[in-house]
Amino acid sequence: MSITSIYRAPDGRVQRDLPVEALADARQSSGGIIWVHVQGVTTLEAEALGAAFDIHPLALHDLMNAEYETPKVDEYATFLFIKLHGVDHGETDELVRTTELDVLVGPNWVVSGSHSPLPAIEHLLATLPDNPRPLERGSDMLAHIIIDALVDSILPTIHQMDDFADEVEARALDEPRRELLADILRLKRSAMSVYRVVVPQREVLYRLARGEYALIGREAALYFRDVYDHLVRVEDLVLSSRDRGEGALTTYLSAVNIRQNETMRILAIVTSVFLPLSLLTGIYGMNFEHMPELGWSWTYPVVLSLIVVTVVGVTLWLFGRFLLDRAHDVVRLTFRVEQRLLNEAIEEAARLRDAVTNGTREP
Amino acid sequence: MSITSIYRAPDGRVQRDLPVEALADARQSSGGIIWVHVQGVTTLEAEALGAAFDIHPLALHDLMNAEYETPKVDEYATFLFIKLHGVDHGETDELVRTTELDVLVGPNWVVSGSHSPLPAIEHLLATLPDNPRPLERGSDMLAHIIIDALVDSILPTIHQMDDFADEVEARALDEPRRELLADILRLKRSAMSVYRVVVPQREVLYRLARGEYALIGREAALYFRDVYDHLVRVEDLVLSSRDRGEGALTTYLSAVNIRQNETMRILAIVTSVFLPLSLLTGIYGMNFEHMPELGWSWTYPVVLSLIVVTVVGVTLWLFGRFLLDRAHDVVRLTFRVEQRLLNEAIEEAARLRDAVTNGTREP
Amino acid sequence: MSITSIYRAPDGRVQRDLPVEALADARQSSGGIIWVHVQGVTTLEAEALGAAFDIHPLALHDLMNAEYETPKVDEYATFLFIKLHGVDHGETDELVRTTELDVLVGPNWVVSGSHSPLPAIEHLLATLPDNPRPLERGSDMLAHIIIDALVDSILPTIHQMDDFADEVEARALDEPRRELLADILRLKRSAMSVYRVVVPQREVLYRLARGEYALIGREAALYFRDVYDHLVRVEDLVLSSRDRGEGALTTYLSAVNIRQNETMRILAIVTSVFLPLSLLTGIYGMNFEHMPELGWSWTYPVVLSLIVVTVVGVTLWLFGRFLLDRAHDVVRLTFRVEQRLLNEAIEEAARLRDAVTNGTREP
Amino acid sequence: MSITSIYRAPDGRVQRDLPVEALADARQSSGGIIWVHVQGVTTLEAEALGAAFDIHPLALHDLMNAEYETPKVDEYATFLFIKLHGVDHGETDELVRTTELDVLVGPNWVVSGSHSPLPAIEHLLATLPDNPRPLERGSDMLAHIIIDALVDSILPTIHQMDDFADEVEARALDEPRRELLADILRLKRSAMSVYRVVVPQREVLYRLARGEYALIGREAALYFRDVYDHLVRVEDLVLSSRDRGEGALTTYLSAVNIRQNETMRILAIVTSVFLPLSLLTGIYGMNFEHMPELGWSWTYPVVLSLIVVTVVGVTLWLFGRFLLDRAHDVVRLTFRVEQRLLNEAIEEAARLRDAVTNGTREP
Amino acid sequence: MSITSIYRAPDGRVQRDLPVEALADARQSSGGIIWVHVQGVTTLEAEALGAAFDIHPLALHDLMNAEYETPKVDEYATFLFIKLHGVDHGETDELVRTTELDVLVGPNWVVSGSHSPLPAIEHLLATLPDNPRPLERGSDMLAHIIIDALVDSILPTIHQMDDFADEVEARALDEPRRELLADILRLKRSAMSVYRVVVPQREVLYRLARGEYALIGREAALYFRDVYDHLVRVEDLVLSSRDRGEGALTTYLSAVNIRQNETMRILAIVTSVFLPLSLLTGIYGMNFEHMPELGWSWTYPVVLSLIVVTVVGVTLWLFGRFLLDRAHDVVRLTFRVEQRLLNEAIEEAARLRDAVTNGTREP
Repeated sequence: MSITSIYRAPDGRVQRDLPVEALADARQSSGGIIWVHVQGVTTLEAEALGAAFDIHPLALHDLMNAEYETPKVDEYATFLFIKLHGVDHGETDELVRTTELDVLVGPNWVVSGSHSPLPAIEHLLATLPDNPRPLERGSDMLAHIIIDALVDSILPTIHQMDDFADEVEARALDEPRRELLADILRLKRSAMSVYRVVVPQREVLYRLARGEYALIGREAALYFRDVYDHLVRVEDLVLSSRDRGEGALTTYLSAVNIRQNETMRILAIVTSVFLPLSLLTGIYGMNFEHMPELGWSWTYPVVLSLIVVTVVGVTLWLFGRFLLDRAHDVVRLTFRVEQRLLNEAIEEAARLRDAVTNGTREP
Repeated sequence: MSITSIYRAPDGRVQRDLPVEALADARQSSGGIIWVHVQGVTTLEAEALGAAFDIHPLALHDLMNAEYETPKVDEYATFLFIKLHGVDHGETDELVRTTELDVLVGPNWVVSGSHSPLPAIEHLLATLPDNPRPLERGSDMLAHIIIDALVDSILPTIHQMDDFADEVEARALDEPRRELLADILRLKRSAMSVYRVVVPQREVLYRLARGEYALIGREAALYFRDVYDHLVRVEDLVLSSRDRGEGALTTYLSAVNIRQNETMRILAIVTSVFLPLSLLTGIYGMNFEHMPELGWSWTYPVVLSLIVVTVVGVTLWLFGRFLLDRAHDVVRLTFRVEQRLLNEAIEEAARLRDAVTNGTREP
Repeated sequence: MSITSIYRAPDGRVQRDLPVEALADARQSSGGIIWVHVQGVTTLEAEALGAAFDIHPLALHDLMNAEYETPKVDEYATFLFIKLHGVDHGETDELVRTTELDVLVGPNWVVSGSHSPLPAIEHLLATLPDNPRPLERGSDMLAHIIIDALVDSILPTIHQMDDFADEVEARALDEPRRELLADILRLKRSAMSVYRVVVPQREVLYRLARGEYALIGREAALYFRDVYDHLVRVEDLVLSSRDRGEGALTTYLSAVNIRQNETMRILAIVTSVFLPLSLLTGIYGMNFEHMPELGWSWTYPVVLSLIVVTVVGVTLWLFGRFLLDRAHDVVRLTFRVEQRLLNEAIEEAARLRDAVTNGTREP
Repeated sequence: MSITSIYRAPDGRVQRDLPVEALADARQSSGGIIWVHVQGVTTLEAEALGAAFDIHPLALHDLMNAEYETPKVDEYATFLFIKLHGVDHGETDELVRTTELDVLVGPNWVVSGSHSPLPAIEHLLATLPDNPRPLERGSDMLAHIIIDALVDSILPTIHQMDDFADEVEARALDEPRRELLADILRLKRSAMSVYRVVVPQREVLYRLARGEYALIGREAALYFRDVYDHLVRVEDLVLSSRDRGEGALTTYLSAVNIRQNETMRILAIVTSVFLPLSLLTGIYGMNFEHMPELGWSWTYPVVLSLIVVTVVGVTLWLFGRFLLDRAHDVVRLTFRVEQRLLNEAIEEAARLRDAVTNGTREP
Repeated sequence: MSITSIYRAPDGRVQRDLPVEALADARQSSGGIIWVHVQGVTTLEAEALGAAFDIHPLALHDLMNAEYETPKVDEYATFLFIKLHGVDHGETDELVRTTELDVLVGPNWVVSGSHSPLPAIEHLLATLPDNPRPLERGSDMLAHIIIDALVDSILPTIHQMDDFADEVEARALDEPRRELLADILRLKRSAMSVYRVVVPQREVLYRLARGEYALIGREAALYFRDVYDHLVRVEDLVLSSRDRGEGALTTYLSAVNIRQNETMRILAIVTSVFLPLSLLTGIYGMNFEHMPELGWSWTYPVVLSLIVVTVVGVTLWLFGRFLLDRAHDVVRLTFRVEQRLLNEAIEEAARLRDAVTNGTREP
């Protein structure tokens, strides 16, 4: 759909959106530097681009290919091919979505390409001409800025995933429902899909930072090491999200079991209470002729009282436990609130005392 | 059963299906290149082949051996022995089936062999004589084309496996049945069997791409790196299928548990309702002589009403919940549809506004 | 118990079972080659052997030691010490049993030893004198033949384990019983015990094949690579057996759960049907004086019919489902058979047509 | 908030809290050594610091950055950047909390920084001026002392986690309750979060100990190896805590199952006893005219006795088992105590005898 | 508590327990060799020792430190510091207990230290003066003997653990009880704690055997390789014990489930039999006036017979199955015994025949 370019001529002037025919000249200008970003170009345009920058057909094919591919860095004779993924929150069922960005780094040029819009890159394209200092520091630093923007845009999504893990954990403890299971599995699946993108991506940055490639200078390598650290951080967070998903799964499955236990306990209590009582009424419902108790006047009130007392007692016991538990919860919560107030008061007092002691007036 | 060969003479003429006796001459022609593909040859033919290309007895034995073997690359004095597997969808119980392809790469010749027909290779054999350009680029590029065709034929099967994982996941959430378990285990088993083939295969391609072998030129190594990337992609997909199988298994087992919970709940409710009512009828079924309630005219209607009201109430509660759930589903679905329509309308309006603002007429 | 030896003199004559005193001379004969196999020798004999071949005391002690040890290769100043394991099917509770074989390879001699008879080695000892060609190719090729015979004898046992996995899988789906669990665990344990032997064994062969040792020539290294491939194959099969054991375990545990579900369902249905009906009979068993229904002549037939119809209905429903399921099975099976017949007829027709078209007469 | 510094001049005088402007001079004084510790400085102060020690902007940015980052060591042209984590027990829900410490090591200076107060470091800052010997041994030994203080402060927290694991294990065996599950998961989560910090931290110390960096002398490397050993120990303890959490989880889940089993057993026993007895009373509650037993005088006492004996018998059996179990516990505990007393007596006697035999009088 | 030493002077005389002051001389005697073993020495003694052997303060501190530390080998300028663990069976709750042994190896001296008595080392100290040959072979061989004694003492404990695994497996199949779970978890925990000690220990021996250190001669390296093999064996056994613990856990948990299944089945059968029969008696217990069956004389006997036949039939069926199962067990066991006797008879006959055929008289 679009080819955007930013060119800084040897004399320092910055130019936007050069015509395709001018790209080859720009690339060969000694001391100039050019960045071309393509998104969804036609085959014809791609071939023009390939000719302008002398890009190997395999790399060009890779750049055009819309299918998902794993992050990697390939070294060609005159340039580096770096494939990375941005991660943003998905619009569909999944929590996250990854978008590919290819970055080709030549001696004084960078060609980048993606198949769907990447806000981080678009923001960079829009602001760079007004703030062209990075363009003065060589193509490796330019590549660093692009890659850094991409990687920085990953963290907010990961934090969202982390929040989702918080929520899922809380729900597993509170009120486990069927829908929760789907959410837990979605969390684990999303964490693993990000993990599978981040690990090779970290490896790519590691190799860029190690000074393995002639095109990446010593100073730029330091900066790539910084990006590498960010990815290590992302990997840690992703693994922690996955572990929390595992924990929520265990909690959920165990809650299902515990609930079953409670149902069974109620069933056992009801049966153990009413079957014996029914037997009792059954005994005095028998039609034997010689049952002297039937004629005594105090037997029926005694039997009836026994039944009523038992049923009322068990009911109270069952419900009473429930009521006691609720009362206990209330007391505990109140107590905590009280303690927190107390703590705050103590801290406030301590703060006052310190302020007086130091004779300072810091708010 | 068959020996097929394609020979490009030094003068550029392309010839099909040379007699076995002519193979040795073809191989020794300076500037010529020859590809021989064998499938199910006899021992006699194999020996003729071995003599023509001076193939080491171990390699020849390996080529003839119909048993399953793990992908590998072996370096012999005058040629490379590459063993790979194609993956296609199985006809029997299993989702996938792997077929072995051996590729021997000499300085100006390629010998390939398989034990069952490989459509990708047959298609290549049929079309290459009419489009002989790859033959001009050396035996390493010829080997690349063969291996690329094989690897390209893996992806559709993997996508089918992915679709099967989709289906299995959906069924685990909807209506878990006994047959599903067998399907889940089949999915996991198939994913693992592909995984066990793909990992060493990826390793083979990695070594071919690294320029480890003198027979693989620098340019061909670039192309093998491309095939390597495809296998990395296949491995990612396979691992993801396996993970989704695991998720479906968890869902299935949990669904069995939840269903049991519901059965227990119904049992507990029925028991808790009818045992007490039975006790009540048991009480007034006793034969004590002194039971004044029996003589009062309003007791029977009261007891009967109590029983009827309780039974009807519980039944309504149980079924009513069910009905309410259904009603809730309908409302939720309708609401979603409404919201989607609303969203679309808003987007349409926004698009109109943008078009007017920019003064452009892009459809 | 026994020392067996095969000696090929420099002049090509082959001699069996040299006296122990002649071994040192045989070893020092330039151009001769000797293989000594010991099984369960006494300490005295071992010392004679050690003296004859100048074996380091540690190696001699290792050779005599009857305890299980992990496969390994140790390099001594004048020879290689290779420890491997054969795997055959166990006679006791376990599916497999491993037997150790030590192979010492010197410049022109091989000493091998085991503590229980190894059929593969005994067969080799019996046939080698009549077919002495391998003796002409040096001690490394001789060692290869011995090790190859040992490794080849592993595969049948692994295939038996695979068959057992088939059987266990089928039983887990059909009729899960208590004994099955023991069999599944036995399968997993056996797979792991073979796995723990095969992995270091593969490593040993890898090192022999890599040309790491001066005593293993370039040609023999190629042959050891072939043995290495066999062990990779064994490892794949063993891991697959273990995975199938895991799958069978999941199926079994889930089948136990599903069976429990069905028991619960029956219990819930029986309870839900008979408790309400019992309540009904309880109502009309009460002794209130004012129960007008008791005097009406049509109430008893109506109540009785209600009870009978309900009980018969539920019974039919329960059993009817069962009968319908069976009928469904029959129809499905019949249909499959029919389809298979149809398929076969079509294939037969296609075969006939091809035969006619090609004008050939292949049976 | 604060910049603290300790400066040892070439003449051996030690000075505290130099003004920021004097830092650059201190650093360039030949033979002097300076340690600056910053906590929560402003950007302005940071820039002054960066200028004084010629710190690379990336390192300065890293030092100021308050976000969590993984432990690492980066080599810059004139200094080493070491990022580590202290672990102390958390105040909130989590068992542990990690605090970052950055240590920059130059030829004769160390700059350290953290974002929240670290007691170990503060203690060191307070005591070092009075005990300045470590300042005489170079910047690498100074860095060692700082890092050693940090790592030493980890172990008490790990021991607390270990105690928590003890407690959780004991509770899982005694009285499994819902809250326990949350504690188990918290233990596992905390162990994993420490593990994820300790593993890269250990790697950092390994690299410092290996003599990889010119700024770390041979003697200091020995001391870093000692710190490395402490971290290996921490890792062992953390893994063991995690394993014990796993064990407690298994125990807990199994206890839930076993409790359900017991509920079921009681339900089954009650049902099996009372349903048959109820049937018996039901039989003699039928109103058939021809039931001769109803008229016999001994039938009612027999039926009644049968019922009473059965109910009493079953009750005794159920409760009797319980009582027997308790009695068994008492006996077992008593026995153990007795045996321990006996053992102690025997040991005491043995000790006396040894003392007499040796003719010594050691208490 | 004690410093023990064995000194072999250059002239071959062996001396025990040198005074601390003589140690430095002994160490510097050219051609002499000395072994000092310390256990629980005071700081003062340690310092004297350090001075005598010129031990680096860090190593000395490590030697004195009573806390658990991971096995390792550290290279100092003039000696090697080797830290290992012995494993013996624990006296408390745990199956095993590890005891640390530090071994410092100098050019002609060995200093070893532990914090609790190690029987293997004490035995060596007691017997070495009478059998001083190992002292003649250098300090590396002396260190080997000490380490070999320690490692050899591990195996009996591991075998005990293996026996415990046998027992636990058998109990899981026979009569799963609550205590078993604690034993299974103890087995797994013990296996893992030994595993965590053995893996770094194996690594230590690997490095000693690889000839990485100048102080370990080529011959001694061979002997350390032998110790390494023992540790590989220990690791295999420990992993196998852990796996068997896992298997026992699965068996135990599944047995709990199966038992629950059986309880449910009995409950379902009892309910399904007695609820319908109770309904029957309930029908004829109703008080309708128009129930002609009540007046017929054959109805009561028929109903009563129906009830009795059903109850007796079901009871027989339930108990009969049980009795049949027992009978089946008896038959199976008897059959096995018979077959074994038969097999033995056949083997005996075969042995006799072989003896006759070979004309030999081997017992």
